[in-house]
Amino acid sequence: MSKPTLSQTGGSLLIAWQLKDKNVLIVGGGELLSKAYIPAQKSSSTSTPSRITYYDRRFSGPAEIHKMDMVLTALDDANRSREICEMCRKARIAVNAADIPDLCDFYFGAQIRDGPLQIMISTNGNGPRMAALMKKKIQAALSGSEGEAIDRVGVLRAQLKERSPGVGGPLGRRRMKWMSEVCNTWEIDDLTKLDDAAITKLLDEGWEKNTVPSPQNFFSNHSRASKISLQLSHVGDLIPFIGTFALGGLCATLLFLGHRHV
Amino acid sequence: MSKPTLSQTGGSLLIAWQLKDKNVLIVGGGELLSKAYIPAQKSSSTSTPSRITYYDRRFSGPAEIHKMDMVLTALDDANRSREICEMCRKARIAVNAADIPDLCDFYFGAQIRDGPLQIMISTNGNGPRMAALMKKKIQAALSGSEGEAIDRVGVLRAQLKERSPGVGGPLGRRRMKWMSEVCNTWEIDDLTKLDDAAITKLLDEGWEKNTVPSPQNFFSNHSRASKISLQLSHVGDLIPFIGTFALGGLCATLLFLGHRHV
Repeated sequence: MSKPTLSQTGGSLLIAWQLKDKNVLIVGGGELLSKAYIPAQKSSSTSTPSRITYYDRRFSGPAEIHKMDMVLTALDDANRSREICEMCRKARIAVNAADIPDLCDFYFGAQIRDGPLQIMISTNGNGPRMAALMKKKIQAALSGSEGEAIDRVGVLRAQLKERSPGVGGPLGRRRMKWMSEVCNTWEIDDLTKLDDAAITKLLDEGWEKNTVPSPQNFFSNHSRASKISLQLSHVGDLIPFIGTFALGGLCATLLFLGHRHV
Repeated sequence: MSKPTLSQTGGSLLIAWQLKDKNVLIVGGGELLSKAYIPAQKSSSTSTPSRITYYDRRFSGPAEIHKMDMVLTALDDANRSREICEMCRKARIAVNAADIPDLCDFYFGAQIRDGPLQIMISTNGNGPRMAALMKKKIQAALSGSEGEAIDRVGVLRAQLKERSPGVGGPLGRRRMKWMSEVCNTWEIDDLTKLDDAAITKLLDEGWEKNTVPSPQNFFSNHSRASKISLQLSHVGDLIPFIGTFALGGLCATLLFLGHRHV
């Protein structure tokens, strides 16, 4: 082997960054970004308060990054990118420079999103094509119901906490154990059937009696009425996923500084 | 539906954080961490320069975080965690407080690591058990050779860049197109067979002639000698993956502040 492999030298720390109430500055990107994001912003302005501000002007210096939590540069001018990255480093602001991996505090990877389920695939710079292939392989292994199942488990967990509140202790442990057992014994498709009525029933007949019913038994004596409400609740899941990076699905304020004059 | 689902309100920004030459402070963790990490540090001290410093003392205040790039708290005392998080927020240092999601700038998720391939699965706080189930499902879909394949593609890519250097332009585009075609037409198992001799051959017979041979043709006239070197090269891949978060697989310096006296 001509060089040490990455498995011997280390990798990245994969994290889920919370952009809620944060400010992100994107310097450059020019035509591509303005074409992609400005029309998107316009089309959503009736339903979503805009979290994008587009400035078609030159990057003026350190004052620009003062209130930022994250900076991305997408410039053709590598020297300008380097300067901005150095400003960010001094100010302790996480920075990514497109196409200049050495300057980056963080990288992006191939991403899969299905409601609350998010998956990132990183090859640590060993080829974006391979990340895309891995993404395809993983997507093929998922049924497409996982996001909905995780969403319903989240609601079940929240309602269980409401019913039996408190942090830690024997009750906390019992809650955790019971939730694990539900997730371990129920299949993804069973979990997606947990509409609000079924969740109440599961807490009444399962949690309160300290047992986890099998989904077969649980759903076979589930009333016809709740089956109807179940079907209706599925309509809600058809609401298209609107949240994107730019549209504030991540609740961040994005500021674009135009490319042309940079 | 009783509450808006996450798919409508946004998620996280998944990123691959680069810890190289960074400082990470972990406050607390006490017995668990000292048991797990101190012996690990001892056992590796002969081969790896230590990147862990353990202080068995009280967290003294803002000066502690001054040179940190990332802070994690693992304290039973939620108020103390909150104080430390506020210090970090003021100083613009990314912080994670164990068990207090509201205070976190970032979360962790279930992780899969296979050499240069890293996968993170996040359920956005909707249950760690579901993340573990997704991890199992994804692991079952992978053959276990992906990491090695990605590693070999990384070497191929690096040698191609050495042979035909330069950033961007028509040559850059030709390189990218040729690499994509190799990844698209060769299977994972074919890619793992790319030892150093095979890589040179592929560049000579493929890149130089502006073609991508099929792996069947390519390996059928591959000499017996290089098959032997191929087998030997596999021994290198058996070297166990030693790098972990604590051992500097991520090249960060970790500073632990003991739990007991905090």
